[in-house]
Amino acid sequence: MLIVKKYGGSSVATPERVRNVARQIIEDVEAGHRIVVVLSAQGKTTDQLLARAREMNPNPSRRELDMLISTGEQQSVALMAITLQSMGYQAVSLNAFQVPMYTNKVYGSARLERIGTERLEAELDCGNVVLVTGFQGINRYEDVTTLGRGGSDTTAVALAAALHADRCQIYTDVEGVYTADPRYVKNARKLAEIGYDEMLELASTGAKVLHNRCVEMAKKYNVEIEVLSSMVKATGTIVKEDSLVERMMVSGVAADKNVARISVMRIPDRPGKAFSLFNLLSQNDINVDIILQSIGHDGTKDISFTVAEDSADEAVAILQEHLGQLEAAEVTCFKDVAKVSLVGAGMVSNSGIATQMFEALYNAHVNIRMISTSEIKISVLIDEDQVEEAVVAIHDQFRLYEKK
Amino acid sequence: MLIVKKYGGSSVATPERVRNVARQIIEDVEAGHRIVVVLSAQGKTTDQLLARAREMNPNPSRRELDMLISTGEQQSVALMAITLQSMGYQAVSLNAFQVPMYTNKVYGSARLERIGTERLEAELDCGNVVLVTGFQGINRYEDVTTLGRGGSDTTAVALAAALHADRCQIYTDVEGVYTADPRYVKNARKLAEIGYDEMLELASTGAKVLHNRCVEMAKKYNVEIEVLSSMVKATGTIVKEDSLVERMMVSGVAADKNVARISVMRIPDRPGKAFSLFNLLSQNDINVDIILQSIGHDGTKDISFTVAEDSADEAVAILQEHLGQLEAAEVTCFKDVAKVSLVGAGMVSNSGIATQMFEALYNAHVNIRMISTSEIKISVLIDEDQVEEAVVAIHDQFRLYEKK
Repeated sequence: MLIVKKYGGSSVATPERVRNVARQIIEDVEAGHRIVVVLSAQGKTTDQLLARAREMNPNPSRRELDMLISTGEQQSVALMAITLQSMGYQAVSLNAFQVPMYTNKVYGSARLERIGTERLEAELDCGNVVLVTGFQGINRYEDVTTLGRGGSDTTAVALAAALHADRCQIYTDVEGVYTADPRYVKNARKLAEIGYDEMLELASTGAKVLHNRCVEMAKKYNVEIEVLSSMVKATGTIVKEDSLVERMMVSGVAADKNVARISVMRIPDRPGKAFSLFNLLSQNDINVDIILQSIGHDGTKDISFTVAEDSADEAVAILQEHLGQLEAAEVTCFKDVAKVSLVGAGMVSNSGIATQMFEALYNAHVNIRMISTSEIKISVLIDEDQVEEAVVAIHDQFRLYEKK
Repeated sequence: MLIVKKYGGSSVATPERVRNVARQIIEDVEAGHRIVVVLSAQGKTTDQLLARAREMNPNPSRRELDMLISTGEQQSVALMAITLQSMGYQAVSLNAFQVPMYTNKVYGSARLERIGTERLEAELDCGNVVLVTGFQGINRYEDVTTLGRGGSDTTAVALAAALHADRCQIYTDVEGVYTADPRYVKNARKLAEIGYDEMLELASTGAKVLHNRCVEMAKKYNVEIEVLSSMVKATGTIVKEDSLVERMMVSGVAADKNVARISVMRIPDRPGKAFSLFNLLSQNDINVDIILQSIGHDGTKDISFTVAEDSADEAVAILQEHLGQLEAAEVTCFKDVAKVSLVGAGMVSNSGIATQMFEALYNAHVNIRMISTSEIKISVLIDEDQVEEAVVAIHDQFRLYEKK
């Protein structure tokens, strides 16, 4: 069996953890499997390199930043090869040039486009464990690119797709995908399986188990991902094609505190005004999530929307600057809000779900400030200090702790 | 004018030193020159990476070590590009894959074989300062190799040769090549010029200004090297083809304390015994320098030779192990010895030089333990604690402090 395994930075942060991961790899080698391992940079290496760059230049070029930070993964894979060799196993490390892994040219958030498998297969045929740098690629000019946050997960899925691997295992600091964050909800249950779309909705609503790009890539190439813990030996969660997943009405509750609500008050109630507003934000690469527009009166309306909290200040500054052009009266911003979402593939065919969710929040005395729905998700915006009770209330309401 | 400049690890060890080097580069850019800069890893980075490898494996594979330590130079060049950009100048960093710089396949001490100039020239044409990783290359299998100690100097000379550069400047922590080590000899004089062969003899006898491989490469491609200080603004020493150098009778005195003398006592005085002895050492990659054989009596002879002090223990262990096979009585080793050498292209045609050198040592009460001569060098082995007086005595004897 050909297995692609991915370990994150915290899993290889210390010499002892590197040895621990090496022993896990060896178990699979001893079981007769062919192994490709994707590694992130050790511990805080990437952040430290970024800090060193910013010390020299507060606004460093993305091309040079990628050249700099990509060294972290190269150190990880070489050290792991050295460790496996010390334990008596054959191993070889490969960077993005050597594989090769081609991306588009967008430094800092490149997308993988093409992976050569010849060298990988040759090294596997030689009996090597192959250690591949995560998070990076090269573009057609042979410049180093990085894939952005969660990039190593995407590398693992892309390698699994290119090599037609039998398994793609992503090791994290949690044991799998849960019905709710176990830090908030004591009886949260680990899901045995979840569909790609539900995983995408959970990821975009704060369950940071897998990055969206990685799940999108897995869905595109139909790669089954097994999410499991690098510390605890236990079965994880399989992320796979939705039709193969036992359809659950709801699969989980997720919370996202990195949310701010911005309101643009008394904007003229004329066609094109909403477009001007959101066009302004998208031109500045600010992603808007939930949008709510008041019913107009006196020829004006209020538009409220949510953005990631860390881009709120920039969004407000841009809107203030263009207040005259938008003909709006005022911009307000609230950061003490959070988004709580209920996700489930079965939701689309059951209209009572939203009602039950609102009932649970009402009983917990949680005030709903905004609502947004999709076919497999209902999100509400609430006050940040009520997140825990909201998640617990919804989790209990749908009895998510019970295996369906 | 196209200039290749090389800065070592200590020249870029701190953010302030990186900025200092950036300012020196900018001076040349402002003077209208096209600039290629070769950098080593910052400060002690390489040693730290080696230590991390040895923590995982006392005997790491050279292929993986090269993969690991080559990241140090990549960090240096990216950080320098980022720094130059912060000062308003265009810069781009390139690693061994990107240049490309091909070597043979000997990990840890590879030799540069072929350098592509297309990308370098394209980046220069775009108006970029081009920052190239020193010390490394890729072999024909696209694996990362490193060039060994002093490798970045060799990279600079090879790039200067490939690009037909007008100048090749190697910045070090000394101001140039001196008639003797200025730490020992107060009136040591900085040479304006020195020939390749003399520089090679000086380098191999302890003047660690330039590495031998770099000088050999410069001689092969007739690249003039300017050795100068990264800290002090002053004219350095030009290393160039000997026939173009004003032939001095003697150009300098060098001392090497990293020497040990090993003696193999009472080895049978039969043909083939010396061969067996030195073959044993060369098979174990131990380099022998001066060799002295006693005149045989009673059918046996003593063979003494010098090796680098840090390989003495290994050499003695090998010899002890094979004492029976060699039919020798005993192996002794003295580490408190040093080699002092007088180097000069004019030496070959002047037979009185050796006599004058021995006279100087006699007057300084320095006992000579071994003697070795070449066309442009006379070396003597003396007690380590007499090195300073020996160097001063020889320097004075030949009035090297005077410009000839």
